[in-house]
Amino acid sequence: MSRTRIHNFAISLDGFATGEPQTLETPFGHAGRRLHNWMMATRFWDPAGSTGIDYAFAQRNNEGIGAEIMGANKFGPPGWQDDPDWKGWWGENPPFHTPTFVLTHHPRPAIEMDGDTTFHFLATTPGAALEIARAAADGLDVRIGGGPSVVRDFLAAGLVDLMHIVVVPIVLGRGVRLWDGLEGIEAGYDVEVVASPSGVTHLTFTRK
Amino acid sequence: MSRTRIHNFAISLDGFATGEPQTLETPFGHAGRRLHNWMMATRFWDPAGSTGIDYAFAQRNNEGIGAEIMGANKFGPPGWQDDPDWKGWWGENPPFHTPTFVLTHHPRPAIEMDGDTTFHFLATTPGAALEIARAAADGLDVRIGGGPSVVRDFLAAGLVDLMHIVVVPIVLGRGVRLWDGLEGIEAGYDVEVVASPSGVTHLTFTRK
Repeated sequence: MSRTRIHNFAISLDGFATGEPQTLETPFGHAGRRLHNWMMATRFWDPAGSTGIDYAFAQRNNEGIGAEIMGANKFGPPGWQDDPDWKGWWGENPPFHTPTFVLTHHPRPAIEMDGDTTFHFLATTPGAALEIARAAADGLDVRIGGGPSVVRDFLAAGLVDLMHIVVVPIVLGRGVRLWDGLEGIEAGYDVEVVASPSGVTHLTFTRK
Repeated sequence: MSRTRIHNFAISLDGFATGEPQTLETPFGHAGRRLHNWMMATRFWDPAGSTGIDYAFAQRNNEGIGAEIMGANKFGPPGWQDDPDWKGWWGENPPFHTPTFVLTHHPRPAIEMDGDTTFHFLATTPGAALEIARAAADGLDVRIGGGPSVVRDFLAAGLVDLMHIVVVPIVLGRGVRLWDGLEGIEAGYDVEVVASPSGVTHLTFTRK
């Protein structure tokens, strides 16, 4: 059965999944790369990287994924909707390699990129977007790629089957929080926690 | 050298150290006992409890402590200052067994309890309270007992040498947050993280 999954979603100790302000130069605001250094130190990112627990979790990101859904703030900096040439942060060959659905109030025609990534733009609800993405995934799973507002919306709508959260031991102080509005969300999940020697903690939420 | 320590300070995934509302019947608001079940399952609380990692951390609470400082909201529910007979939540023999300093804007005469606990009431700054508590601790360490506002104030003032935080895998959604106003606090500390089979994560902050 096709599942809806979230992977490698990093937050600070105080629950921020991104800092502020988001700009073209700073996609994660004042957080910089600090939320993702754990991942960039693994073979998932760096061919000479580590192959232990952080890599084991990181590489699951792509396994069996047939489509991604992301929010407008993951696709580009504020104002990208006004730039008809904006094609995302990732260059000509983005790391998705599947149909990729961008939720935005300002949809535009689909963009075919190299490496089998096609960006589709949808102005719809999480549930409707998931139906569309699932059809495109052709029996494989759908990844909710972030940012935090979109992850929150899918969790609140009860649409997430598996979620991998990484808690990074820093206090960001400001940005966009993951957990707001999700009181008691753990009741629907089995939660497993394991700490990595790198200092981060991996949480796995599996729907009951 | 006498250190300033925090132990067994539990927070939810979203960083709340207590729920709401605090009342006489619900010292931790809607959080109930959920933030402290991990501790009550150990021999620190229950003679038939567990003796593994959670116990190893929990029991450090009392080792080498000569005084405690707590906030007004730890000492009693809203309005305790108007009750001349209020002596804390803990009965005639509170679990402190040292001089215990309650920060309040409405100080009152000291109260001697059984078991060597004396409650003193101070209307002063964290730094001044620490000097007084340290003198009373007679060479031993001073524990900052909470709640979250007081812990935050001592951290913000740079007064904490060692802090043990326990992250409980629940999303409380509301209450009082630990980390607010502490952006970057980790820079002054070595942070170690270890997950327990019970599902909680122990973080140890040791001042550099």
